[in-house]
Amino acid sequence: MKILKSISEVRRVVNNNKNKQIGFVPTMGFLHEGHLSLIKKAREENELVFVSIFVNPTQFGENEDLDSYPRDLERDSNLCLNAGVDYIFLPNANEMYGENFSTFVQVDKLREGLCGKSRPVHFNGVCTVVTKLFNIVKPNKAYFGEKDAQQLAIIKRLVKDLNIDVEIIGCPIVREEDGLAKSSRNSYLSERERIEARVLSMGLKKCKALLESGERDVQALKKVIEEEINKAESSKIDYIEIVDSESLQEVETVKNKILVAIAVFIGKTRLIDNFTFEGEK
Amino acid sequence: MKILKSISEVRRVVNNNKNKQIGFVPTMGFLHEGHLSLIKKAREENELVFVSIFVNPTQFGENEDLDSYPRDLERDSNLCLNAGVDYIFLPNANEMYGENFSTFVQVDKLREGLCGKSRPVHFNGVCTVVTKLFNIVKPNKAYFGEKDAQQLAIIKRLVKDLNIDVEIIGCPIVREEDGLAKSSRNSYLSERERIEARVLSMGLKKCKALLESGERDVQALKKVIEEEINKAESSKIDYIEIVDSESLQEVETVKNKILVAIAVFIGKTRLIDNFTFEGEK
Repeated sequence: MKILKSISEVRRVVNNNKNKQIGFVPTMGFLHEGHLSLIKKAREENELVFVSIFVNPTQFGENEDLDSYPRDLERDSNLCLNAGVDYIFLPNANEMYGENFSTFVQVDKLREGLCGKSRPVHFNGVCTVVTKLFNIVKPNKAYFGEKDAQQLAIIKRLVKDLNIDVEIIGCPIVREEDGLAKSSRNSYLSERERIEARVLSMGLKKCKALLESGERDVQALKKVIEEEINKAESSKIDYIEIVDSESLQEVETVKNKILVAIAVFIGKTRLIDNFTFEGEK
Repeated sequence: MKILKSISEVRRVVNNNKNKQIGFVPTMGFLHEGHLSLIKKAREENELVFVSIFVNPTQFGENEDLDSYPRDLERDSNLCLNAGVDYIFLPNANEMYGENFSTFVQVDKLREGLCGKSRPVHFNGVCTVVTKLFNIVKPNKAYFGEKDAQQLAIIKRLVKDLNIDVEIIGCPIVREEDGLAKSSRNSYLSERERIEARVLSMGLKKCKALLESGERDVQALKKVIEEEINKAESSKIDYIEIVDSESLQEVETVKNKILVAIAVFIGKTRLIDNFTFEGEK
């Protein structure tokens, strides 16, 4: 495994391997089993596997956790090495955003609801950096977690709209034993918050059970989640939304494929979780 | 020479020629000698030459000339054939902008002055379609006319910022015998307007002579252009600007490399012209 810090080094490797199938896992580092499941899939399906580790400043809002975002390069490299990664792309912010940088990529509509409400610049930052990374690594397939459901929908739209020649693969959420979705941000939680944080997955579980029992009313479905989350003293709901899984537009009753998505502050830590459900056609 | 109408046909050709050097000339058709000079250069420098012909709706403002923009595919194909083009990519708007299209690419700062003032959506449309075309054709080199000086500066910035792996080549303005810069829009001019239209290049010529004689005051330089253009009864100045050739920011005195750029309505037809000048360092 090699660590490449400059764009030109990556270009050289990519140009020397034009006929090889490249799988790519873009990350912000502090890898957990969610990331490792993406890497595992990339390893199975490709000849070369690239992982990028870049805490992208443009996707953080002014009052968000850019500076405190957890980093542990040594641990990350060992995990990548053991997972059979061929190259880690590890640029710094200056390598990615040089002097007079002035371009951005935006996906309208999809970016507006859900996390876009409380994080208005977030998805422009994501789209811009992902477009850049795709142009640098030129992967055949790229792997993203379904935990970031809105991000996944936006990136699929972006790739389709801009005709980027890459296949986007979504991979299932990986969870802790008590159901909490794996996230680098879980490391922010105090011991007590960590215990309380299970209300996110519990709320979703109860909502899913209700759906499976036939409930189709969105208000009733949201209510069961809300009640569960409010059991945690440290919780504050950012949103509970039930939307069409592709357009991300709110639905009134459950038809077609829906996404049930939530964002909740546990103390100061903002966590997200979701599941999809195939309603009647 | 083959005409390809679908993105998937282009993909197939490009994937079958992965190791060939591809030169690309994106156009809106109604080709003139300006375009042909780009194609000639592309032919000299590459193994395969692609020309796209697409009157891109997203770069026209609401009251602009999208519907009346001149088209003559038969003439264009003959010109391309004679110029040794290998493939014309001729998509329709639906092929380029399918259902629920919602992505755009924007270059800030550079897009704001000059033509950006009277054409606020224009360069977002250009950047978005050029990004798409680059992702479809995957050229090694792409050729643009220096007549569209702001467009060229923006595309260079876009390619650098988004790490698109293509070399952008600017080619000199081609002119009619009386100095008028070649443009598809010249076909809109009445006989009388056509004669009056030479004030654009005449104004620039006088400005250049003044620069060469040592004048460095921007107001004086602009004035000589203004006076020349006002000689034409049908003329109405959109802008006369002297800017840094890279940042496109207005300058007060002439230093480094400047761009002298003008946009003038001759009757209802908006024409542009420019030249660059290397001031003292």
